Amino acid sequence: MIRFILPKKHFAHTLPKLRAATLRSSRYSQSSKPNRGFLEIQGINPGVVMSFSFAAATIIASASYYFFMDKPDPALIEYNKKLVQIDMGERRLTELDMNFPSFDEESTEPIKGRMEKFVLALQKSLVKNLEILDNTKPFFWDRWEREDSKGYGISCILQDSKIFEKAGVNVSIMQGPLSKQQLESMKSRKQSNTIKDNVDYDFWVAGISTVIHPVNPMAPTVHFNYRYFELTERDDPEQKVVTSWFGGGADLTPSYLFEEDCAHFHQTLKDSCDKHDQSFYPKFKKNCDEYFFIPHRNETRGIGGIFFDDLNDRPKKDLFHFIFDMGFSFHTAYLPLIAKRMNMSYTKENKEWQQIRRGRYVEFNLVNDRGTKFGLHTKGGRTESILMSLPLTARWEYKHSIPLNSSEQKLLDVLKTSREWA
Amino acid sequence: MIRFILPKKHFAHTLPKLRAATLRSSRYSQSSKPNRGFLEIQGINPGVVMSFSFAAATIIASASYYFFMDKPDPALIEYNKKLVQIDMGERRLTELDMNFPSFDEESTEPIKGRMEKFVLALQKSLVKNLEILDNTKPFFWDRWEREDSKGYGISCILQDSKIFEKAGVNVSIMQGPLSKQQLESMKSRKQSNTIKDNVDYDFWVAGISTVIHPVNPMAPTVHFNYRYFELTERDDPEQKVVTSWFGGGADLTPSYLFEEDCAHFHQTLKDSCDKHDQSFYPKFKKNCDEYFFIPHRNETRGIGGIFFDDLNDRPKKDLFHFIFDMGFSFHTAYLPLIAKRMNMSYTKENKEWQQIRRGRYVEFNLVNDRGTKFGLHTKGGRTESILMSLPLTARWEYKHSIPLNSSEQKLLDVLKTSREWA
Repeated sequence: MIRFILPKKHFAHTLPKLRAATLRSSRYSQSSKPNRGFLEIQGINPGVVMSFSFAAATIIASASYYFFMDKPDPALIEYNKKLVQIDMGERRLTELDMNFPSFDEESTEPIKGRMEKFVLALQKSLVKNLEILDNTKPFFWDRWEREDSKGYGISCILQDSKIFEKAGVNVSIMQGPLSKQQLESMKSRKQSNTIKDNVDYDFWVAGISTVIHPVNPMAPTVHFNYRYFELTERDDPEQKVVTSWFGGGADLTPSYLFEEDCAHFHQTLKDSCDKHDQSFYPKFKKNCDEYFFIPHRNETRGIGGIFFDDLNDRPKKDLFHFIFDMGFSFHTAYLPLIAKRMNMSYTKENKEWQQIRRGRYVEFNLVNDRGTKFGLHTKGGRTESILMSLPLTARWEYKHSIPLNSSEQKLLDVLKTSREWA
Repeated sequence: MIRFILPKKHFAHTLPKLRAATLRSSRYSQSSKPNRGFLEIQGINPGVVMSFSFAAATIIASASYYFFMDKPDPALIEYNKKLVQIDMGERRLTELDMNFPSFDEESTEPIKGRMEKFVLALQKSLVKNLEILDNTKPFFWDRWEREDSKGYGISCILQDSKIFEKAGVNVSIMQGPLSKQQLESMKSRKQSNTIKDNVDYDFWVAGISTVIHPVNPMAPTVHFNYRYFELTERDDPEQKVVTSWFGGGADLTPSYLFEEDCAHFHQTLKDSCDKHDQSFYPKFKKNCDEYFFIPHRNETRGIGGIFFDDLNDRPKKDLFHFIFDMGFSFHTAYLPLIAKRMNMSYTKENKEWQQIRRGRYVEFNLVNDRGTKFGLHTKGGRTESILMSLPLTARWEYKHSIPLNSSEQKLLDVLKTSREWA
């Protein structure tokens, strides 16, 4: 197993490419400004009403983060505090908080608990960085519980802000009886050999799911989610895990094509994958192109990324390490793109094209996405969280047409033919 | 069989109710202005490019209309020329063309041909009246053919005009082999006793489908469609019709509730139904409430109307008469509502609420509507026509909230509990 510490090795590896590919614009520079430690509990803007749900969500997230999180690598903190500083259009210096925790190789804690802390920590750091980029209003933290108390979630939402039309970072931890329908679906996939007939199973799942729709049509929409799933036999007094797996992925959906952005996004994902298994990226990239395809439009939703499910072909701890790295490297994959594009000028026509593309996003999510369909058809599913992925606004024109050889056509061409980006 | 001539009996019957319920506003008055005959070929606005598709569509529609349509009742023309004259906000007098053809009781022509002419004639008269109401730009006529030449359609679209955000009136006439999937679906319904195993069937279908999304949030969205379906055995040299049926319905989706509008819409549908069978309206109204339900929102799409399928329980000609009357009475059911509401003043908040409701419309159509799902999952389906029903714009806010006892809440209450309107 390759030891993979996010900062020193990861950034040392990706930064040159990153700089070569996208950071030449001088928007990014190193600095040694005083560092905000990653363990500090995130400050709440004065004047924001601390609703109960906000308070509960913050306490849970912070407590898990503070007391239980895998310990940070001091070298990582030192390195990252100098890493990303963005010279914005209006010359405001913005330092993102890239002080991620490192993976604890020595921990003997069950993956279940570590996964829960991981999704909470990733949510917290991502929300913080998106707030730094937006710099106008805080996320709304919405903690909710299932009516049967068999699970909870924290939905963090920022909508109609300066930079984000809608950004949602959603975490949920659920358990309960596996329905007949879910069981059949699992048996038809690769878990078939481990799942017996006439046995009742319970599931446990922890996941993080994020969709970000920026205001600026030049800035791409992004989505990622990572989840861990465990099955136990209901009547087993020891509650031994029968089978478990990881699933997830990350993909980019631009309205206008900047090839260097696509290359950077894919290269960052590939670098993180390669640290764990060089076969991952090519396989997961292909999955992604196949999954995010809209048959009735004969185009992909965006320019892809990675996508995988039922991952359980090696020790759990190694797979969790992979997920952990993929989660935190999302910052590096996406935040530079939004920082670079969020203040670009654009026309009314650019905005209209973005709205048309948003329409396609809605079509994919409501017609084709298995997760959304499953969620909406599940009794007791939380519709607000499931549909958090939909954009704030969308548009459908009958036979919308675009000029030949336009930037819009350039995007469509890429959505019709899969391309290698890394 | 009750003889049902649309104007004299129908209007004489509904007008008093209509006036009492909705026309008190003095927007409607009788007049004896010169009448534009319904046989006149619709004038094309000067300056509009006569594209090939426009020309082809117009020729087909007009030719069918002029040469083959059931002949009009002179009394109907006389009556209708005085019927609807709308005193608009800006005091412009607008006379709608309510000179519909009457149903020809004596015709011996097969229903297939009469149905095709009926949908073309209804499309033409509806498009004409919507253009009169809008008075800014003409519909775009888009004639298309299936690649295998086994059918054609005419889509009439008006989008981003003064009165209509998007209005689509779509006609299609198709034939072809019945797929295994369609066959199974039919056998599971009431056609089961007539459909044999190991026999290949061909279908023929003619239908009209309309969705109108007005700009003004006080004006309701409306949808209707009527279709006639025939099955023949592929190897039967006589091509005898094995089974046939009618389906369709009409339903109203307001963003703001005007009870008198809902009552008028339902009453008009009920009156037309009652002329044919008094059991129709209660049964079809219930179907409609059940069908246009969004489970994941626990609300109906709108305030309902009528909905039916597989109607073949009496002589074909009688059922066609029913469909014919339902189609033309749509004018009476809906046009007064749009005329009354299209110039009302509204706020930014009203418009935003309309956008949220548009979002729900998209959700129903993409997640729940059987027709849309079937169309999108059918190879060779024409996506542009299938998704014509989507609004031009829509909006999704996370946990959008509305004030207690507001007009918005009044609408939601009605969408949670079915109500009797007529």
